Amino acid sequence: MKAKLLFIFFCVTICFGHAQTDEDVLATVYKTSLTNGKSYEWLDYLSNTIGGRLSGSTNAELAVQYTKKELEKLELDKVWLQPVMVPKWVRGEKEMAYFETLGALTKVNICALGGSVATPSGGVKAEVLEVSTYKDLEELGEAKVKGKIVFINRALQPELINTFQAYGGCSTERYRGAAEAAKYGAVGTIVRSLSSRQDDYPHTGSMSYGELPVNQRIPSAAISTNDAVKLSEALKVNKNLEFYFEQSCQQFDDVQSYNVIGEITGSEFPNEFIIVGGHLDSWDLGDGAHDDGAGVVQSMDVIRLLKESGIKPKRSIRVVLFMNEENGLRGGRKYAEVAKEKNEKHVFALESDSGGFTPRGFSFDCSDLMFSKVEGWRPLFKPYLIHYFEKGGSGADIGPLKNDDIVLAGLRPDSQRYFDHHHAANDTFEHVNKRELELGAATMTSLVFLVDKYGTETITNTKEIKD
Amino acid sequence: MKAKLLFIFFCVTICFGHAQTDEDVLATVYKTSLTNGKSYEWLDYLSNTIGGRLSGSTNAELAVQYTKKELEKLELDKVWLQPVMVPKWVRGEKEMAYFETLGALTKVNICALGGSVATPSGGVKAEVLEVSTYKDLEELGEAKVKGKIVFINRALQPELINTFQAYGGCSTERYRGAAEAAKYGAVGTIVRSLSSRQDDYPHTGSMSYGELPVNQRIPSAAISTNDAVKLSEALKVNKNLEFYFEQSCQQFDDVQSYNVIGEITGSEFPNEFIIVGGHLDSWDLGDGAHDDGAGVVQSMDVIRLLKESGIKPKRSIRVVLFMNEENGLRGGRKYAEVAKEKNEKHVFALESDSGGFTPRGFSFDCSDLMFSKVEGWRPLFKPYLIHYFEKGGSGADIGPLKNDDIVLAGLRPDSQRYFDHHHAANDTFEHVNKRELELGAATMTSLVFLVDKYGTETITNTKEIKD
Repeated sequence: MKAKLLFIFFCVTICFGHAQTDEDVLATVYKTSLTNGKSYEWLDYLSNTIGGRLSGSTNAELAVQYTKKELEKLELDKVWLQPVMVPKWVRGEKEMAYFETLGALTKVNICALGGSVATPSGGVKAEVLEVSTYKDLEELGEAKVKGKIVFINRALQPELINTFQAYGGCSTERYRGAAEAAKYGAVGTIVRSLSSRQDDYPHTGSMSYGELPVNQRIPSAAISTNDAVKLSEALKVNKNLEFYFEQSCQQFDDVQSYNVIGEITGSEFPNEFIIVGGHLDSWDLGDGAHDDGAGVVQSMDVIRLLKESGIKPKRSIRVVLFMNEENGLRGGRKYAEVAKEKNEKHVFALESDSGGFTPRGFSFDCSDLMFSKVEGWRPLFKPYLIHYFEKGGSGADIGPLKNDDIVLAGLRPDSQRYFDHHHAANDTFEHVNKRELELGAATMTSLVFLVDKYGTETITNTKEIKD
Repeated sequence: MKAKLLFIFFCVTICFGHAQTDEDVLATVYKTSLTNGKSYEWLDYLSNTIGGRLSGSTNAELAVQYTKKELEKLELDKVWLQPVMVPKWVRGEKEMAYFETLGALTKVNICALGGSVATPSGGVKAEVLEVSTYKDLEELGEAKVKGKIVFINRALQPELINTFQAYGGCSTERYRGAAEAAKYGAVGTIVRSLSSRQDDYPHTGSMSYGELPVNQRIPSAAISTNDAVKLSEALKVNKNLEFYFEQSCQQFDDVQSYNVIGEITGSEFPNEFIIVGGHLDSWDLGDGAHDDGAGVVQSMDVIRLLKESGIKPKRSIRVVLFMNEENGLRGGRKYAEVAKEKNEKHVFALESDSGGFTPRGFSFDCSDLMFSKVEGWRPLFKPYLIHYFEKGGSGADIGPLKNDDIVLAGLRPDSQRYFDHHHAANDTFEHVNKRELELGAATMTSLVFLVDKYGTETITNTKEIKD
């Protein structure tokens, strides 16, 4: 054992002596992730042994315990759970739906949206009013809407290259559709799934009734893209057809849960924090492998890859596995609240929550000056085909940390396949490619290394680089 | 109909008047591919209705007929078949293999390599000699090799970012392994599949006996990566275990086949040719959706998207669907031979043969001067996240056209998943994402448009751009 330790020491000395360039460090990080990564093995467990991890569920708590235990094995300086109360919404029985035209029933695939109320026992049956956006409802008014099931049939725009932009263009339909339709007396809403594919999977996601009184809330579900087309076609032939759906979801009181946090304490600036994270909760239909099992295991591997690559951070590096991004963002808010209470100086936060696909780069939310510094590192990433460094959003969980002194960043993987799987039963482990996942972890680790080495402040920066 | 034609004319006039910039044209091309592409529908037919298209098979001929018919529907100036004789190798019965340790049989997944001879009826059974490369055989010599089944267990290097580089590092083991092992008296070779994944699929591919006399040829098969590991582990415990395999493949006489060609004749320089293509043949195990159904349908859509986008090429644009890339390259050679005979001036050739994944850019095989011109167009592609313009290889089928006056180019899609599917039973339609495929077609069309507009000659170029 001693001989082995001496050998490792010898290797590290050779590799990380004075001649070690940033290029060398990145090469080590990528090689380590691709030949000796842990992200895929962790994701296998989270996805296949645990499964979907909806906030407040037993699976979510199993994921808390599992990731804490795995972080403890990494021999970090600290690993702890940060308590946070989370909402508990439960889907209940599998939903059932069909439409009926002159006595002929056509079954369709739906799923309750997260936060929806149940239908009355025995379901809801009514005529359908198809609209292309909830905004049409105001003009149609109560006369046309009352007593109907509102079907919001808005497809993602395929011509947008960034599928997140296409998703963003429709997500309000899902989030506010039911609240708006209820205002005009609708008895339910059916929303076309926010999917970039034509298939049979309904995609869930959060919705809100806003300030709507409890007794006015109507059930809301997503319908698969294939069935949205089918229903729309059927309505062209028979606008009086009736739609039936039944769902038994329930909202319980908030329950105790946790963010999972691990830390390597900085050697020079222990009170400056760099965090990297993803969210531990997922929706319940699939196993949450892409959303956001991938971000969780990549973030865990960032802190491990730093160690494995012989990097000793100057600043304190934390991996934060946030709870409840999907239907509440309680974990992200709690983390920021505690950081503020403790007056912790956070200089950089990086989130991976866009799927475990081939990384293309990062988007940054920070001042132009800070961005110009960070962007200067782009050439180091060229050998790894990482080319995208742009200002833009970062991540939902790290958003609450925003202030003038922090750089927020989001990993930007290739977005083409993400919304094929997002929030649906086909967000499963077999759709994650090991190499793509590992490249993402290496890309994140490389950026964390550079931020730790050079800082994000633009004045310090120039000096440090010249040194 | 007249009204419709007038309307189209009106739209085209508005869209493509003097103010039409290159940026506008690319925007139109991408939008048309993503909202009104045909590539995915064509690929569905090629993959699911026809299936694997090994040279000389009925399916290959069905693919010739189908693509010719589809090109004819596009109302190009010419569509024709270019005759070419191709080899006909047939797999026969599904292969069978196991290894035996003290009477216990472990079944393993193998497939004959393309071009291999059959085993004798009743199979081959022998002890195994594991090597990490065929180059080890020279040192081991006849004493160690004779009578054995040589198992070449060389894995793709996971740390290489470009998986084609990893593949290139091992492909000679598959291609020459049997010929080398036969020299020292081996009775068969088993080659670890050239796969970037650990799974149960064996990956076929071409092999050659070189100048080896027919009576000295030994059967050669690929083994799945999981079974390669299993066999290697078993050999550590029992180096005398015996391996059995049986395969009944056969080489027939060459048969008649065809390249399929469609052309839009250029309005200004009809005798300058730009070609875009992929290969119509595939291996027989899967349905050849990525290799190279994707390249075929993307190339077909290039010529269609040019028309749909209202582009009237100055030069003659040809789509060429090559036959027999996989085990002979006869189609590529024939096309170049005929072009030379007819003294056709080819200025640009683009091949898509790296899978239907998200396009990242192109590699170019041409002079530095020509490359510097082509590279100048890179900024136009930035909105589409196309960033990779580098010198390098192009495509096997267009290689025979090489001379000093042509620019050869290859589409470079993201390479991470390609060798999970390449030449294996899981190269199937469901692993192709519609958007990724369509983005590739749009990216190819955009480059063809620019080459046609500005040419590839560097002197003409500057003048043309200033005009």
